[in-house]
Order: sequence, then C-alpha cells, then structure tokens
Amino acid sequence: MRRVYFDHSATTPVHPLVAEEVYRFMTEHNYGNPSSLHYFGQIARKALDESREKVAKAIGAKSEEIIFTSGGTESDNMAIHGAALTNIKRGNHVITSAVEHHAALNAVKALAKQGFSVTVLPVDQYGMVNVDDVEKAITDKTILISIMHANNEVGTIMPIAEIGKVVKDRGIIFHVDAVQSLGKIPVNVDDLGIDLLTVSGHKIYGPKGIGALYVRKGTRWRPTLFHGGAQERLRRAGTENVPGIVGLGKAAELAMENMEAENKRLLTLRDKLIGEVTKRFSHVRLTGHPTIRLPNHASFVFEYIEGESVLLSLDMKGIAASTGSACASGSLEPSHVLLSMGIPHEIAHGSIRLTLGAGNTEEDVDYFLEAMGPIVERFRSMSPLSEEIDYNKNIKDPGNLQSYC
Amino acid sequence: MRRVYFDHSATTPVHPLVAEEVYRFMTEHNYGNPSSLHYFGQIARKALDESREKVAKAIGAKSEEIIFTSGGTESDNMAIHGAALTNIKRGNHVITSAVEHHAALNAVKALAKQGFSVTVLPVDQYGMVNVDDVEKAITDKTILISIMHANNEVGTIMPIAEIGKVVKDRGIIFHVDAVQSLGKIPVNVDDLGIDLLTVSGHKIYGPKGIGALYVRKGTRWRPTLFHGGAQERLRRAGTENVPGIVGLGKAAELAMENMEAENKRLLTLRDKLIGEVTKRFSHVRLTGHPTIRLPNHASFVFEYIEGESVLLSLDMKGIAASTGSACASGSLEPSHVLLSMGIPHEIAHGSIRLTLGAGNTEEDVDYFLEAMGPIVERFRSMSPLSEEIDYNKNIKDPGNLQSYC
Ligand SMILES: Cc1ncc(COP(=O)(O)O)c(C=O)c1O
Ligand SMILES: Cc1ncc(COP(=O)(O)O)c(C=O)c1O
Repeated sequence: MRRVYFDHSATTPVHPLVAEEVYRFMTEHNYGNPSSLHYFGQIARKALDESREKVAKAIGAKSEEIIFTSGGTESDNMAIHGAALTNIKRGNHVITSAVEHHAALNAVKALAKQGFSVTVLPVDQYGMVNVDDVEKAITDKTILISIMHANNEVGTIMPIAEIGKVVKDRGIIFHVDAVQSLGKIPVNVDDLGIDLLTVSGHKIYGPKGIGALYVRKGTRWRPTLFHGGAQERLRRAGTENVPGIVGLGKAAELAMENMEAENKRLLTLRDKLIGEVTKRFSHVRLTGHPTIRLPNHASFVFEYIEGESVLLSLDMKGIAASTGSACASGSLEPSHVLLSMGIPHEIAHGSIRLTLGAGNTEEDVDYFLEAMGPIVERFRSMSPLSEEIDYNKNIKDPGNLQSYC
Repeated sequence: MRRVYFDHSATTPVHPLVAEEVYRFMTEHNYGNPSSLHYFGQIARKALDESREKVAKAIGAKSEEIIFTSGGTESDNMAIHGAALTNIKRGNHVITSAVEHHAALNAVKALAKQGFSVTVLPVDQYGMVNVDDVEKAITDKTILISIMHANNEVGTIMPIAEIGKVVKDRGIIFHVDAVQSLGKIPVNVDDLGIDLLTVSGHKIYGPKGIGALYVRKGTRWRPTLFHGGAQERLRRAGTENVPGIVGLGKAAELAMENMEAENKRLLTLRDKLIGEVTKRFSHVRLTGHPTIRLPNHASFVFEYIEGESVLLSLDMKGIAASTGSACASGSLEPSHVLLSMGIPHEIAHGSIRLTLGAGNTEEDVDYFLEAMGPIVERFRSMSPLSEEIDYNKNIKDPGNLQSYC
C-alpha cells in the first residue's frame, strides 16, 4: 500500500545519516562510558563534546550552556521546576499560556500545588499569545515566564522576540519550548532573549528519548529532578545516552543545513494543502494563524465530523495524520489548545492535523486530497448532528481563510 | 593495539542483535510515535508491548508492572521520591545503605532535606548489609527501604531475599537497585520480595539512556518527577524512546538466554584474575566479599599506589579498567563504598576494578597480568609513602583472601 506520513509534528523518521551515527556509537570502540578515564571512555567523551557544540550552534548558544536530557518533556520539567525552586525566595509567580504542551503546562500546574501563584495567559482565535497580556501579567513576584515558540497542534508561531524584550532586564527567567520550531524557523537564544530553551531530538529527524535544555550562563537555575552522579557538569545525573546525543548533534547539524531549502519546498506543499482543503470542503476551518505558522503545518476543524474516525479512514488508505493533541490520543477530552482558541467543544472534536516533512511530495498531497473527499462525504452523511447544532453560535471569528489561500 | 575491555560494570558494548533492533526502529516504517492512532504509531505501540513483556519476564514480573525510563538514575530517583512522597502521611522514615550508588543515595539524602528522617545502614568489611541491622532500623514510621542487589564497585551481593522477608507484611515499600545484578544472577521480584526494582539498559549489553522501573501492582507509588503527556499509563510522561525500549527488551531476553553459560565462563576468568593478582603482587587486597560477589567482578586495593595512575598506564597498554566509582571519576574524594567498608582513605585511592564481559577471554586475563607487573613495580618504587604509613593500622580484616583463591 502507498504510505503517506503526514504526522511530522508527532514524530519524524530518523535521518539515515543520524541512524548510522547512532548505530556506530553502540558498536566498534564507541560504546564507552564518558565518565571512564580510558580510551573507550574518552572516545565517548569527545563525541559528547562535539555533539554539544553542534546543538549549541543550531540555537546560537555556547557549548557549555547545553545539557542533554531524555527529551522535550524532561527538558520542560527540568527548566520550569528548576527555575521556580531556585528562585522561590525572590518571588512565587509564574506565567505561562493556555496552549502550552502538557509537558510545560502540567509542570506549571504542579507548581501551583506547591504554593506558587500561576497566571495562565489566554490566546486569541489563532492560538496566539498577546505581548501586552504578558507585560500586564508581570508582578514584582514574577520569577519565570514559560511560553512555547510554535504550537504543536495549530502551528502558530508566538511573538517570542517581543516577549523576550518585555522580559529583559526585569530579572525574570524566560523559558521557551522550541520543540516544534527548531529546524523549521530560526531559533537564536540571543535574538529572542531566551534564558532556558527546550529541544527534542525526535521532532527534528533525530532519535527519540533524547533532548536538550539550554541554560543561559548566569541563569539562576539548578537541577531539581535527578540526584546521582556528576554527569553534565553536575546538571543532569545519569550515564549519558551517547548514541542518542551523537544522533541529536547530527540531526541539529542537518536541520540547519537543510532548513532554508526544505522549508521553501514544504511551504508550497502546505499552501496547496490548505488551499485545496478549504476550497474543496464545506464547513472546514484552518486552525492556528493563517500566515504566522510553521511552514510544514496544516491543521483544520471539520464540522459534523469526528477527527478520530477520519484518522482511521485515512489510515486505511495508508495516510498517517493526527487529531487533537497526539499525546492525549485515546482521551475523550478535546484539545485544550482548540478550546482555548474559542473553538466549541463539538467542533474541536473534528480536528485534523497534517504536518509535512522530508519524505513528502506533491503526489502525497494529491493522494490525500483524493482520499479525503469520500471520507468527508461519508461521515457527513452519517452525522446525526448535522442538522441540530448551530456551529457558528459561539465560535470566535477564525479569520478570512479564503483570503489566505 | 590490542584492546582489552575490563570495565563492564561501567558500561557494556551493545549486543550486535540489540544494535540492529535499535537501528531498525529508527528507520523503515518503524519510527512512529506510539501515541499515534495510525499504522506507524501502532507498529511502535506493538513494539513497546513486546519489549515490556520481555523485560517483565526477565525479572518475573507482569508486563503492566514495567515502566520504561531513561536509565538507572531516573528509575532510582523515580522509585525513591515517588514512594516517599506518596506515603508521607503514613510515615517519614526511609532506610538505605552506605554503599548505594549515588543515584539512590543522593535521592535519599535529598529526602532528608525535605523533612524525611533517614537511616543509612553501615556495611561490614565486605560491603555487605546486615539483615539484623535492617530489622533493627525499622520503626513504625518506616515507609521505604532502598538497598541495592549487587554493589557496582566491589561486586558484593546483598542478602535481598532475607531483607525482603523482614520487610514483608509490614506495609513498607522495598526498592532494590538491580542495575548490576540483572543478567548476572537471578533477579525475581517475587522470590526476593521486591516492590520497586531499578533496571538499566547499558549494563546488560543494551543501549544507553534507557532503563525500567518495576512497580509491583498495588504498591502505593506515584510518579513525581515528570509532568506531561499520558504515556506509560500516566506513570512516565514523554514520548517513548521506542528504539531504546526495543533494544532493552532484546537485551533482557538475550541476557536470560546467555546468563548461565556466560557466567560459568566468566567465573573461571574472574577466579584466575583474583587468584593471580593476589598471588603475584604484595600489599594487594580483594575488595568486596570473596565468594558472595558478581561472577564477572574482581576489585582490589593496591597499597602505595594511586588507582588513577595505574589506570592510565593500563590504558597505554590498551586495557580499560576503572578505579573508585566510575561516575565520580575526576573527583579527589575516594569512593564512599570503600570508606564505608573501613578501608582507610590512603588505601582507598589505590582501588582497581576489573569487570569482565562477553568479549573477554583467558588471553585477556593473561595480557592484563603481564602488563600489570611492571606497572605495579614502577609505581611502588616511586611512592614516597611506601615507608611512612602503617596501612594495617586501622583497616578491618578483609578476610583470608588466599584461602579463597
Ligand atoms: C511543543 C512540545 N513540547 C514538548 C513536547 C514533548 O517532547 P518529548 O516528546 O520529547 O517528550 C512535544 C512533543 O511531544 C511538543 O510538541
Ligand atoms: C548500582 C547502580 N545503580 C544505578 C546506576 C545508574 O544507572 P544509569 O547509568 O543508567 O544512570 C549505576 C550505574 O551507573 C549502578 O551501577
């Protein structure tokens, strides 16, 4: 069967050169423990250093500011809890947004249970955080602001540089989750005014189970999750995942090399996808910002349709897509992101996310469009709800999508 | 140059079949996110399930009792903090031993800072915890006992089954760090009476950066480190390290297949190593228990010698060994394990650990013995201390080693 993978925001295939590096660091003489003083250990140590350099370069940081972790979730938790607990004597107020990934949102919510005061900023109909809202929320007790760079569900790119300017010189730590943005749009910690930055390997054609946390030199932050050995300059205990780290370094390097050309290519495909979907089907809306969005990201809500049913039908045609938050799949709750954007409960259930990547071609887009027609028709004809609900009753204006296409 | 890797307690080479599996799960159609509902996701989901089954089987557990983590350090922290914080209303007393790995010891010490009362049990001259000491330390406030199965530095195997019997029916959670024992001696959670068990991939010819925590069904434990997605049945947030998990499953399976034959083989090599080292060199003592020790583990202290210097000399001959705690290398503090065994500070600095594994042969042992002669001679002749200190002044009797050989 023809297979079309349109779920690159959930995870990416590992780049062949990355997979080879990972393999190489499990075999030959490359399997040593970087803490070991001998030959085998020193090969591993050197590989860590080189990889750290590559990851640092990809985000405009210094090599010693990079800490390797087990992924985006660990980095988010490490950043947020570390910053909050380290600064508790200076203040107890933390600001985040309603559309963060659960790794950040739930980490902040856990702080609320520990006596921190938390502001969860609303977003507009595009899932965008407002810079003025950030500024207004700041109090003299604010110690940490955590806002994602690009949203995983709707692709909207947040005004991070502007928020960075607002935060600057106020002694507040600015954490940014760049899991979805790295490799797709420029991420430079200095340009954006970022103190802590979360990176995940498996979203940039790197391995799963590896990530990084950038910690700006001088930031009042300490590790609070793991106790143990002296690895990562005492900032992350545990034997280093050398093959994963080498893979992440290679993936970061390749992402930088390929970003410009690849994004131009994907943007064309994405725009065709958005254009054709909103033209061919009725009662469909693009979710997220029409233009300030990731170049590979198309996301929609289809009214009168269950996203999960569409997904399974697409899957039978060999097409991999997703609905709601990938990590929350199986739950009946609709996406917190779509609800925060003012999309009603019933409609949020009809979300479909198509995220393009390295292997995709225009034929994939055509194949999807062809497959989607009968699927939408079938479910619409079956829907018992189709006559009963006024879907425009309480939705905010999602913007003139047609003009965008 | 001939390369002899005698540092299998620090880390192991990845078994070729494991490395292939890891590679395979980064490529082909096997790279999906297990949370995804589609074909790619379901392949990954199935691989997780199969791997969970294999890890469970290796320790006599049920598949749903296995949680995948990023390694031994995460598992130890997750076990100890999760158990302590979940049971704080029932009591605040935690028992551990002086020779635990820093991942466990420092996790327990961190609890002490949070208001828990901690008993760190002493060990005897062999690094062995006494079962009566455990029993005597228990109070009606005791909620958690964390003792390792086998010690990484000196190879001593703890009386876990006996401690398990003492703990049983008292409503105390029993955590065991089996990082060094799994694959070398039988580890069965029911036979040993264990509630929480730590496993690490890279010590059993599996990948680095992957581990598992066994949580007995019904144990009052909850995850306290990571907040985020609903992975691992809400017990460990973060996109699963599918290639690592598949590798861990394969490694656990292979370890069980190979254990008996391999250990018989390594035991012969180990005994030759211990016998010859203690026969050929003066002022050398075996550390750890002479017989109740891991079948691949030989560890010594050489008086009048710096372990680190010996290590570097061995490395120049292509031999990889270790000194003190591998993860504490670079620090000037001698091993907390050796000090706890009553070995004086000066002598603890002369520790050498030789841990055998899959690739080692009798020729390796001979090669080491040959190389070691001139090295010991050279350093001894250089030592300014050799006449000045009575090394037997305050060391406890380490047992009649000659009779053991
Ligand atoms: C924005 C964002 N943050 C964090 C994560 C979590 O990262 P990981 O999957 O590496 O745990 C994800 C992906 O799942 C994400 O999209
Ligand atoms: C007994 C013991 N526990 C825990 C660990 C830590 O495990 P990991 O290296 O997977 O973090 C190690 C090894 O370093 C160990 O030997």
